[in-house]
Amino acid sequence: MGNSFGHLFRITTFGESHGGGVGVVIDGCPPRLEISPEEIQFELDRRRPGQSKITTPRKETDTCEIISGVFQGQTLGTPITILVRNQDTRPQDYDDMVQKYRPSHADATYDAKYGIRNYQGGGRSSARETIGRVAAGAIAKKILHQVAGVEILGYVQRIQHLQAEIDPNHVTLEQIESNIVRCPDAAMAAQMLTLVEQVRDEGDSIGGVVECVARQVPKGLGSPVFDKLEADLAKGVMSLPASKGFELGSGFGGTLLKGSEHNDEFYIDDRGETRTRTNRSGGTQGGISNGENIVIRVAFKPTATIRKEQRTVTNTGEETLLSAKGRHDPCVLPRAVPMVEAMVALVLCDHLLRHQGQCRLF
Amino acid sequence: MGNSFGHLFRITTFGESHGGGVGVVIDGCPPRLEISPEEIQFELDRRRPGQSKITTPRKETDTCEIISGVFQGQTLGTPITILVRNQDTRPQDYDDMVQKYRPSHADATYDAKYGIRNYQGGGRSSARETIGRVAAGAIAKKILHQVAGVEILGYVQRIQHLQAEIDPNHVTLEQIESNIVRCPDAAMAAQMLTLVEQVRDEGDSIGGVVECVARQVPKGLGSPVFDKLEADLAKGVMSLPASKGFELGSGFGGTLLKGSEHNDEFYIDDRGETRTRTNRSGGTQGGISNGENIVIRVAFKPTATIRKEQRTVTNTGEETLLSAKGRHDPCVLPRAVPMVEAMVALVLCDHLLRHQGQCRLF
Amino acid sequence: MGNSFGHLFRITTFGESHGGGVGVVIDGCPPRLEISPEEIQFELDRRRPGQSKITTPRKETDTCEIISGVFQGQTLGTPITILVRNQDTRPQDYDDMVQKYRPSHADATYDAKYGIRNYQGGGRSSARETIGRVAAGAIAKKILHQVAGVEILGYVQRIQHLQAEIDPNHVTLEQIESNIVRCPDAAMAAQMLTLVEQVRDEGDSIGGVVECVARQVPKGLGSPVFDKLEADLAKGVMSLPASKGFELGSGFGGTLLKGSEHNDEFYIDDRGETRTRTNRSGGTQGGISNGENIVIRVAFKPTATIRKEQRTVTNTGEETLLSAKGRHDPCVLPRAVPMVEAMVALVLCDHLLRHQGQCRLF
Amino acid sequence: MGNSFGHLFRITTFGESHGGGVGVVIDGCPPRLEISPEEIQFELDRRRPGQSKITTPRKETDTCEIISGVFQGQTLGTPITILVRNQDTRPQDYDDMVQKYRPSHADATYDAKYGIRNYQGGGRSSARETIGRVAAGAIAKKILHQVAGVEILGYVQRIQHLQAEIDPNHVTLEQIESNIVRCPDAAMAAQMLTLVEQVRDEGDSIGGVVECVARQVPKGLGSPVFDKLEADLAKGVMSLPASKGFELGSGFGGTLLKGSEHNDEFYIDDRGETRTRTNRSGGTQGGISNGENIVIRVAFKPTATIRKEQRTVTNTGEETLLSAKGRHDPCVLPRAVPMVEAMVALVLCDHLLRHQGQCRLF
Repeated sequence: MGNSFGHLFRITTFGESHGGGVGVVIDGCPPRLEISPEEIQFELDRRRPGQSKITTPRKETDTCEIISGVFQGQTLGTPITILVRNQDTRPQDYDDMVQKYRPSHADATYDAKYGIRNYQGGGRSSARETIGRVAAGAIAKKILHQVAGVEILGYVQRIQHLQAEIDPNHVTLEQIESNIVRCPDAAMAAQMLTLVEQVRDEGDSIGGVVECVARQVPKGLGSPVFDKLEADLAKGVMSLPASKGFELGSGFGGTLLKGSEHNDEFYIDDRGETRTRTNRSGGTQGGISNGENIVIRVAFKPTATIRKEQRTVTNTGEETLLSAKGRHDPCVLPRAVPMVEAMVALVLCDHLLRHQGQCRLF
Repeated sequence: MGNSFGHLFRITTFGESHGGGVGVVIDGCPPRLEISPEEIQFELDRRRPGQSKITTPRKETDTCEIISGVFQGQTLGTPITILVRNQDTRPQDYDDMVQKYRPSHADATYDAKYGIRNYQGGGRSSARETIGRVAAGAIAKKILHQVAGVEILGYVQRIQHLQAEIDPNHVTLEQIESNIVRCPDAAMAAQMLTLVEQVRDEGDSIGGVVECVARQVPKGLGSPVFDKLEADLAKGVMSLPASKGFELGSGFGGTLLKGSEHNDEFYIDDRGETRTRTNRSGGTQGGISNGENIVIRVAFKPTATIRKEQRTVTNTGEETLLSAKGRHDPCVLPRAVPMVEAMVALVLCDHLLRHQGQCRLF
Repeated sequence: MGNSFGHLFRITTFGESHGGGVGVVIDGCPPRLEISPEEIQFELDRRRPGQSKITTPRKETDTCEIISGVFQGQTLGTPITILVRNQDTRPQDYDDMVQKYRPSHADATYDAKYGIRNYQGGGRSSARETIGRVAAGAIAKKILHQVAGVEILGYVQRIQHLQAEIDPNHVTLEQIESNIVRCPDAAMAAQMLTLVEQVRDEGDSIGGVVECVARQVPKGLGSPVFDKLEADLAKGVMSLPASKGFELGSGFGGTLLKGSEHNDEFYIDDRGETRTRTNRSGGTQGGISNGENIVIRVAFKPTATIRKEQRTVTNTGEETLLSAKGRHDPCVLPRAVPMVEAMVALVLCDHLLRHQGQCRLF
Repeated sequence: MGNSFGHLFRITTFGESHGGGVGVVIDGCPPRLEISPEEIQFELDRRRPGQSKITTPRKETDTCEIISGVFQGQTLGTPITILVRNQDTRPQDYDDMVQKYRPSHADATYDAKYGIRNYQGGGRSSARETIGRVAAGAIAKKILHQVAGVEILGYVQRIQHLQAEIDPNHVTLEQIESNIVRCPDAAMAAQMLTLVEQVRDEGDSIGGVVECVARQVPKGLGSPVFDKLEADLAKGVMSLPASKGFELGSGFGGTLLKGSEHNDEFYIDDRGETRTRTNRSGGTQGGISNGENIVIRVAFKPTATIRKEQRTVTNTGEETLLSAKGRHDPCVLPRAVPMVEAMVALVLCDHLLRHQGQCRLF
């Protein structure tokens, strides 16, 4: 149950850090969508480790294989399974982990819940699990783009105290991919890079904020009450490893304004469309998309695995010390960008199909 | 689909602001729980309008009736239906609404999605829909308390710029209910009251932040990946009207720390339990509860309905002006407290039953 | 969980035999469908007890009230709640039931599962629960008829050994409703009536078979694998009280034929449509509707409650005797007809919305 | 959506007849269950083609690989993925199929629904899809056996007009597996074998009935109303390819009896347990298991693919003739036995976990 996401466009991910492989089964993809392994691989390459000097050096090609659901380059409407084999596994790096709990990791809670855990590389809590999400997100993005011209772009807005200046209404993919930090503010990106390298050399880690904008979203997506668009977006991104906060539009900052200052007044634009003069709403009202850009932000904590020594306990109840030896990210933010985009795409795609089914029948 | 929440402990709410009534059907409540209308009424009374000079003057008793699922004071294990009739409806207050869209409200998006809306009092987007949630939350709270001694307390932490000092590990219900603002910091509560009255007299509105703590939560609740406890908590509270942000533990603030500063080190306490020295995690790790207090925060925007004049459009595409005449809240925060508690209770209760079903079989 | 049915068009029923009332919440109904209490009442009247000399004499008007989701005669797209109050409750008839288990009833199993049961009138296992289904079925039927001209007709095909001759391709509602047995074969209906009255006077009961045809069903409904149309139809009707068997098309009888005798050959009709010369398939192939009439049959056992004395046990483990005193049906078949139609309508309507959502996007 | 089955113990199958492979993802399996590929392979071997002279000669080893969710021989509680690669694919056998629709197959309806189909070997409608179900069923069987000693046995009860005499209360696996027909009545099995070989040589096919018994099922499984145990069992088996009917206990035959003849009277046995003297109920009452043997029957039509020439149409609307050249089963019954057992195991296992979660909390 907890390994599936979505209703009409539903994905189920599988796999651990060390084991046969990871992947996803997508149920409900509309038929006759043209899709190729290359399109999926593009997104997986943005996510994978070892891609730059500031991310974990684990070497995986993350090459995907489409096992089912696609025939002669088109989706069949049947489940699409995408598999990625694990390659660069180093179980010996985790010998310490058999017993010791890494602070702020899932080791202790998995033991508490299941009475058993795959201690190699974090098992199911590993970020490798996100491979399935990003693969499915590639397909969701394509559907959204093909049906409505939707564009989803994520980028690093802040790393620790270094905050960038970015306009979500005009940022482009080229600006985002122009540096390994994935921050479209080039000057700030350089400072961020320096900071991350410094922290990496200290054997420590830092966190930050990813912002994501979805443009050209059709009006009417979202189901009021429990499946408000922002409720599902929040669930989607808060299910990513290391996430600690979510905001839509004006977010926490908007709580400092009065209603007269915060409301988005309506007007009619040149084409006769109902628009809002401002967009503190962040693209949804009453939980339903209103046609304006959807803007969200996700806070990611500093990675829990650091090389510095920490006090901890073993699974037999003894206090001890731990210095992690494995390969880890000093800062997950650049790799988190495609993950956040994928979750946004999955939510919007699911709601697109649901809206089509419930409200476009008569 | 969008009107149900939860899996094993599943609720479906129904009803609009103006119509026969509102309520909830609870499916999956364990049998033989003692429950009375009075226990549910207690929570509904905390939520309802007209309870103080700083909330909307709409007069509703919100008296609940248990229609099914309870027999001789005990739950049967069959669906429990709770109904509350609408009383103080003033459809005439909304004559303007037939045509005009209230800025930052759901009027325009409901029309875009459904092609029809009940313009009286906000229809399904009205806060009256939360009655069903709070009623169900009362039952969820009782189950959690009976099974594990769980205690769930929400309170107003901030109204606009006025921030209170509160220790979530020790705050009590008496402190929270000691004033109509529901802020346990008495000195700050007085300032908040003055500010809200001032804003109400201006015909404007303000927002703020509700914090909620769940104590004595058993370890092991939450399902890694998509149903991480914080993902479901985020979805639950972000589905409340007027919510704009969510945080767990250190939240957005924690992103300013390094990993060595942010990690919660483990230790063994007097009773041999694995504990954390700090709790920036906020009570979950890897999406599963670790036994520490779960602490979340929800940002609520200033209420959209204000008496000041605003520029807007009609549903026939003409620009116009609007001054709301209905009865509205200048600040929703005090009434949002029981709503946030209810969503937290519903999530924890659902996960309690799921954990019992999947992991306590052998 | 077990009290909801459907995915996009989802219903949740509530209520017991003796208690505040029974009803249903419908989530996902498309907006702007014209619906009135009278249309729903029509179907409820076909279902209710005390309508003829051969059904139970319990006097209920089963008057429905629409509590939410409909505004000025049109559906809003928000949940529709329909409530029916219980009137003719005679708790004293069940004094024996506090302790004694009625053979082939749910008394013993409810105690085993829940440790508690509402012994009045069968509690949740009562046929009164089907009121919610039939009310929702009325709306589902209307959607199907409006979108595709679908017609759903059920009738009594057999009572004990008395089998009628009926052509599902041409049977009409007038023929079915022309007698209180609901058997369109008038000669056989008369014999059936005599048999039922005789069995009623003996204090015994008999069962039989209801057949149901759905005509003008569009091609493409059903989801291969687990949600094959016949799989959902089977689940729907086998969830009705007293059901013991299900058949689609040629059913059990078709297993006596060879493939060359059983296959439905294709041909092209006058309008260029792909048709089948025969219809042993029963309207679906590979679990998906093919445009031919969908024909199913449901077996109903003889009602468990009889006036004859039976040997049984008490809930304290003692053997005893039981003579039921309540008001009961000697034969449920005529009242089962609208129930079967309702389940067929709910399944087809849900699949219509799902097909619209997944396959009609591009 | 339609490719998943179950709630707490939920499976999602994937794969087509010709393509990368087939398999299943199991979400919700309890942790710390010992499971090996050999145990799963045992059930897959019972299902696979080419195992005897009376089943299709397609040569597949159906070797399974566990890709995730199992560590050092124990389940982790995380999703278990089992993959089986397709080997003996002969796409050239299906060249005719690009255009021609096989009568009583899914070719025409898949085109109607999706506008595209994988015409090789039946695509998603192929019986190879059942590999995933049987693999998951092996795990479900083990859980049921370990927790409650449940035993699930299926067997061929009838092939065309040849009906066997079998006592479901005492039949054993050895008797069932003693001949390739899987009929425990040895004399009848010999006659059945002769008949099948004769029909195979004619290029035709025949059908029959599989009966399945589940013994030692704990009381209390099943959720009244929509998830009655028999409703989920019906859905499970009616989702198998070629199924056309379902019966529980006395089934259609019981409709010939009167209530006084049909009811199962209660008594108290030697150990003080509440038992029934007869078992026409078939092991459930009110949709909940009562501790007696659960007995169901499934009707399978004669296989649609035969070598004899048939009249049909092409996907461009022309009438034509078709003689199938591929390798096919003259009688699916022996291979259907493990499939039926698997569906029964999946339903019972899901309900076991749900009952544990909802009713065993206090």
